[in-house]
Amino acid sequence: MDEHTAIHLANLFSALSDPSRVRILDLLFTRELSVGAIAQQLGMSESAVSHQLHDLRIQRIVRARKVGRQVFYCLDDEHVAELFSMGLKHMEHF
Amino acid sequence: MDEHTAIHLANLFSALSDPSRVRILDLLFTRELSVGAIAQQLGMSESAVSHQLHDLRIQRIVRARKVGRQVFYCLDDEHVAELFSMGLKHMEHF
Repeated sequence: MDEHTAIHLANLFSALSDPSRVRILDLLFTRELSVGAIAQQLGMSESAVSHQLHDLRIQRIVRARKVGRQVFYCLDDEHVAELFSMGLKHMEHF
Repeated sequence: MDEHTAIHLANLFSALSDPSRVRILDLLFTRELSVGAIAQQLGMSESAVSHQLHDLRIQRIVRARKVGRQVFYCLDDEHVAELFSMGLKHMEHF
């Protein structure tokens, strides 16, 4: 594996290494949600949630869909869902 | 998802968010290797490799097997391999 790929993959995992982001992804694991709905369920401000979602979008971990004035988010693809799911399964060993 | 689980999962991803660790895991993806062999292949010192492997062991990402005076490492389980593999597949989108 070349250095560029290693840095890129490390950045992907780095984007997932925050408890708030993990909780956001957990909510999005089963369904698409608006920023407001995520904020409400996690007891976070909408601006804090938006900030985390922005970083997750850069890494293509989530994607956005605009409906009128609302923005809905979901996991970007099945690899992200699988990545998250494998992380959870791995934790069952502890 | 409770806060404890979120922190735990974030820590797992955090352990993967370093280019050197990613390159070590890439080598271990297909086979078990000694610290010396990893160090040689990556052009790192054995002590630097040992340090990274120590942190990866704490998160049960790799496990060790002692044979005489040598220590061999491999990925801890199929979930880790899958986690790594999904990360690579996700990167193909970029």
